[in-house]
Amino acid sequence: MSKVGIIMGSKSDLPVMQDAIDILKGFDIEVEVDIVSAHRTPEKLFDYGQNAHTRGFSVVVAGAGGAAHLPGMIASLSPLPVIGVPVKSSNSIDGWDSILSILQMPGGVPVATVALNGAKNAGILAAQIIGSSDKCVLDKVIAYKEGLKIKVNESAKNL
Amino acid sequence: MSKVGIIMGSKSDLPVMQDAIDILKGFDIEVEVDIVSAHRTPEKLFDYGQNAHTRGFSVVVAGAGGAAHLPGMIASLSPLPVIGVPVKSSNSIDGWDSILSILQMPGGVPVATVALNGAKNAGILAAQIIGSSDKCVLDKVIAYKEGLKIKVNESAKNL
Amino acid sequence: MSKVGIIMGSKSDLPVMQDAIDILKGFDIEVEVDIVSAHRTPEKLFDYGQNAHTRGFSVVVAGAGGAAHLPGMIASLSPLPVIGVPVKSSNSIDGWDSILSILQMPGGVPVATVALNGAKNAGILAAQIIGSSDKCVLDKVIAYKEGLKIKVNESAKNL
Amino acid sequence: MSKVGIIMGSKSDLPVMQDAIDILKGFDIEVEVDIVSAHRTPEKLFDYGQNAHTRGFSVVVAGAGGAAHLPGMIASLSPLPVIGVPVKSSNSIDGWDSILSILQMPGGVPVATVALNGAKNAGILAAQIIGSSDKCVLDKVIAYKEGLKIKVNESAKNL
Amino acid sequence: MSKVGIIMGSKSDLPVMQDAIDILKGFDIEVEVDIVSAHRTPEKLFDYGQNAHTRGFSVVVAGAGGAAHLPGMIASLSPLPVIGVPVKSSNSIDGWDSILSILQMPGGVPVATVALNGAKNAGILAAQIIGSSDKCVLDKVIAYKEGLKIKVNESAKNL
Amino acid sequence: MSKVGIIMGSKSDLPVMQDAIDILKGFDIEVEVDIVSAHRTPEKLFDYGQNAHTRGFSVVVAGAGGAAHLPGMIASLSPLPVIGVPVKSSNSIDGWDSILSILQMPGGVPVATVALNGAKNAGILAAQIIGSSDKCVLDKVIAYKEGLKIKVNESAKNL
Amino acid sequence: MSKVGIIMGSKSDLPVMQDAIDILKGFDIEVEVDIVSAHRTPEKLFDYGQNAHTRGFSVVVAGAGGAAHLPGMIASLSPLPVIGVPVKSSNSIDGWDSILSILQMPGGVPVATVALNGAKNAGILAAQIIGSSDKCVLDKVIAYKEGLKIKVNESAKNL
Amino acid sequence: MSKVGIIMGSKSDLPVMQDAIDILKGFDIEVEVDIVSAHRTPEKLFDYGQNAHTRGFSVVVAGAGGAAHLPGMIASLSPLPVIGVPVKSSNSIDGWDSILSILQMPGGVPVATVALNGAKNAGILAAQIIGSSDKCVLDKVIAYKEGLKIKVNESAKNL
Repeated sequence: MSKVGIIMGSKSDLPVMQDAIDILKGFDIEVEVDIVSAHRTPEKLFDYGQNAHTRGFSVVVAGAGGAAHLPGMIASLSPLPVIGVPVKSSNSIDGWDSILSILQMPGGVPVATVALNGAKNAGILAAQIIGSSDKCVLDKVIAYKEGLKIKVNESAKNL
Repeated sequence: MSKVGIIMGSKSDLPVMQDAIDILKGFDIEVEVDIVSAHRTPEKLFDYGQNAHTRGFSVVVAGAGGAAHLPGMIASLSPLPVIGVPVKSSNSIDGWDSILSILQMPGGVPVATVALNGAKNAGILAAQIIGSSDKCVLDKVIAYKEGLKIKVNESAKNL
Repeated sequence: MSKVGIIMGSKSDLPVMQDAIDILKGFDIEVEVDIVSAHRTPEKLFDYGQNAHTRGFSVVVAGAGGAAHLPGMIASLSPLPVIGVPVKSSNSIDGWDSILSILQMPGGVPVATVALNGAKNAGILAAQIIGSSDKCVLDKVIAYKEGLKIKVNESAKNL
Repeated sequence: MSKVGIIMGSKSDLPVMQDAIDILKGFDIEVEVDIVSAHRTPEKLFDYGQNAHTRGFSVVVAGAGGAAHLPGMIASLSPLPVIGVPVKSSNSIDGWDSILSILQMPGGVPVATVALNGAKNAGILAAQIIGSSDKCVLDKVIAYKEGLKIKVNESAKNL
Repeated sequence: MSKVGIIMGSKSDLPVMQDAIDILKGFDIEVEVDIVSAHRTPEKLFDYGQNAHTRGFSVVVAGAGGAAHLPGMIASLSPLPVIGVPVKSSNSIDGWDSILSILQMPGGVPVATVALNGAKNAGILAAQIIGSSDKCVLDKVIAYKEGLKIKVNESAKNL
Repeated sequence: MSKVGIIMGSKSDLPVMQDAIDILKGFDIEVEVDIVSAHRTPEKLFDYGQNAHTRGFSVVVAGAGGAAHLPGMIASLSPLPVIGVPVKSSNSIDGWDSILSILQMPGGVPVATVALNGAKNAGILAAQIIGSSDKCVLDKVIAYKEGLKIKVNESAKNL
Repeated sequence: MSKVGIIMGSKSDLPVMQDAIDILKGFDIEVEVDIVSAHRTPEKLFDYGQNAHTRGFSVVVAGAGGAAHLPGMIASLSPLPVIGVPVKSSNSIDGWDSILSILQMPGGVPVATVALNGAKNAGILAAQIIGSSDKCVLDKVIAYKEGLKIKVNESAKNL
Repeated sequence: MSKVGIIMGSKSDLPVMQDAIDILKGFDIEVEVDIVSAHRTPEKLFDYGQNAHTRGFSVVVAGAGGAAHLPGMIASLSPLPVIGVPVKSSNSIDGWDSILSILQMPGGVPVATVALNGAKNAGILAAQIIGSSDKCVLDKVIAYKEGLKIKVNESAKNL
């Protein structure tokens, strides 16, 4: 049974990251949420990154703002796919710092980056990754996408 | 057996995208390479996106430059995880257009974006996605990361 | 009799796009408004783009925010002139993502891009396109521009 | 019979703007090419803008670099649709100045902006504008787009 | 007796441009304020630019937002020094469009650009230009700068 | 008789700044050229700024790259109009640092900023400033602008 | 006994700079706070910069916004380490001007730049600089970092 | 006796980082150079960061490009002052990614950031930090700054 680790650099990232938690729960995928600060709890970061794949996680979703090193450092330490969520935190320069410090990883150590504050998409992407080998989850993703379509069509009707 | 679809918007993207092909072949993962232009072959785009998950692909890697709609449109059409490679093509504004038009997908339709011209990382990420449910591929990723470490340590010795 | 198709990626774009509707109605040009999401209703997008020129439209005005693929994908599918309105939506990075993903189309597939949130200008441009072969609409554009001049001169007098 | 006016701020813009001339000639659309500098020949600019619609032009394509005022000033003076080509000239800051000073026109005076150095697309857009009321030109645009598709498919076969 | 022409593209620029009026009045320099829109009143623009130096102005201060062509077009038409004030208007992209379309003038036609919304500095600069040949105004500038110093020193004392 | 002080932060700025020297000499305006580094010769900077107006200068033109403090510090010290030339030096980030550190002066202390590497325009602006009170120089500026017009018209003929 | 000089360009910078004062007082390090404006009190700037190292300061922390010359000019005048705090003042363009005019100092004259509005970090960095030769202060820094860790761990427990 | 640790993320950073080595050797300050990759040798990173202050270093200079996590992670692990050098590596987006991911550290964990490719200034800053408690090194910094002044004055004479 797949499990997704959701971590963030600070409790202040939770309002953004909650979207990832909610969407994954909606897909009936187990999540484990934690705060891991690359800059304030580096030992916890190391422990988390080195052991994520042996603790049953399939994917790690990591959100951080400003000079956002958490996703990249987890990717450095873990062989799992790591999804990075650039958070537009209060100390961020319109989000550019968060985006670039998560996206522009060097060759060898990818982070699957989603849009600024795109925690919802991080959750869906985690489900898609699990779904790529789990027919049941894939079907839920297909149903979810069908639901999006229906909502747009309804809003078009009500114009 | 997992298979990765690698597509690009133009043949001129091949020198960049070759890195994804090479790294996946190095992991003994089957790849299928094609040119699919969102803007010049929209019917092929639709066909590709709608059928990728039934044709045996686990992941799609899509690279494009400028107003790069290919990764997002495949993500729109397919339930599979889609990895987007922003290509710094000749008509791109320092790559910003490629990055933003791939990264900033709306809620509901994620693209796993890697660094500008980061096709190598797209290949590794595809392997990690497969590895998240395939112990054999996971071990290859672990070995690959170990290899990176050894190379850095050697270059440090030769300073 | 000319008709303009006005579409947007989401109902949340309507407050911006209303300006295009209003100005065209002011020119007595028929408009048809719809919601077409490139990422959530790709089949509708395809249908719309492939048939716009046979359904009596002269021009299509398409507005979208973030990774805004709607205008470019309609331009991919239709031989009609497509006017793109970059919308500064809530998930946009100050509008840069919307602008660049609409403006920077590859050679062969233009989108006539207007200013950020410039739906009013999109409407005027649609009228000018129709006016380029319709003397009656051209005269209305000339009168409209004369009206702008009068307003500025009045505000100058009241300084 | 439709005619397109193609103007540019300096002879040094000709290598970029030639693409617009070539593509329109390929569509058998008459073009008239001139150099009109907003900043060095303002009287010519005024004369050109005020009379373009009485001289038989259907569309004006205007290219300029740096603080590029030519497209916007023609749009200020003429009721015709004006297509602006931001040119990445030697004195431009990576093209951002050209793009923003053409794109960000105030409400009331649109410029149909294409990609940086996108003169080819400016030509196609001019053809599409003419084609929106001229079935013969519309068919040429449809054929042109078909040609793009064929070329991509061929390059895909030769991978 | 020197006189400064202060113009702006729209009445909505007045709250910003008022600073230039106030500071020049404080230097006892005559000002004449007007609204001249490059895009909506191009004939007035031409008349203003061509005649400013024969109407007794020593300097023209021109403020505009978005694709701000007013300062550059006045500079095109007039031999006088033109000071440009980039205004962060509501339709501006954080002011970047205003700044670049005023600052990046081509060789031959300078605009003396001040900071975003820097109308106060535009007024001081106009006074300095007049002061460069008028000892009485120069002394007022010297006194003004002395006043700045005193205010800072007082605020330092009150820390 | 008016005199223009032309200073630059480093000898490596001379190839850019030479344009200001040449154009002013072409207007028969006396120039005095010096190297004054805000960061390496602060005492010379102070001496220069405090005494420029008593040494017979009418205007100071100051060019610098990177964190370009020279123009602003001269403006801090002198009551004369100071023209700033942002130089795209080798250590500059595409010129953005030079532009912003010269342009964005605080209220009270203006720098008349010209385009990136726009030393030619700095020279013309200095002539215009002198010309605003010197009919003979004004006439030279008018003749210069006439010359620009003739060159464009000739290049248009030779298309 | 070490002492840190904390200066800012304007009293309006105090709310940001207070963080540096507070954190250093928390480390029991003496601070001396002053307002020194590079552009309005250049003589005070010179005096401060030339004498800081003889007045007992170990480090100078300088904060400023917009075209922020204060940190760089102090670094020009003083052999001490200078820490620059880019302040996002009201006249700043999203802070980019402050950052670039502090960070991009030419070779020979460094400023130790911290994050936008990062006065707290400027204070900690000043403590670290003192701590690099003062075991007692180093231990306080170690304890401070330990405290950060504890807070994160507690917030993680309370998720 | 003070010692400076100089580390970089990749051997390809050495041509840039050599300037820091050279300038510190010129000040007779001992340096120890190593390659430490945050993303490829995370264990070495941890070891280096945790022990730097007990191994006799006074300062650490860390250079890296792209998503540059090395300086910030060392700052996370060490109580020493850490100087970060943003390197404009081949995979960097004009250096913006390197700058922002080093500069924008969260409150509590500063990195003393210098200009893009500013390794020389990193070396000087390290010397200034040591000099803040070591009169002999301070005198060398003073002499170095005097040397800069002499070179500028000589280049001014040779204009």
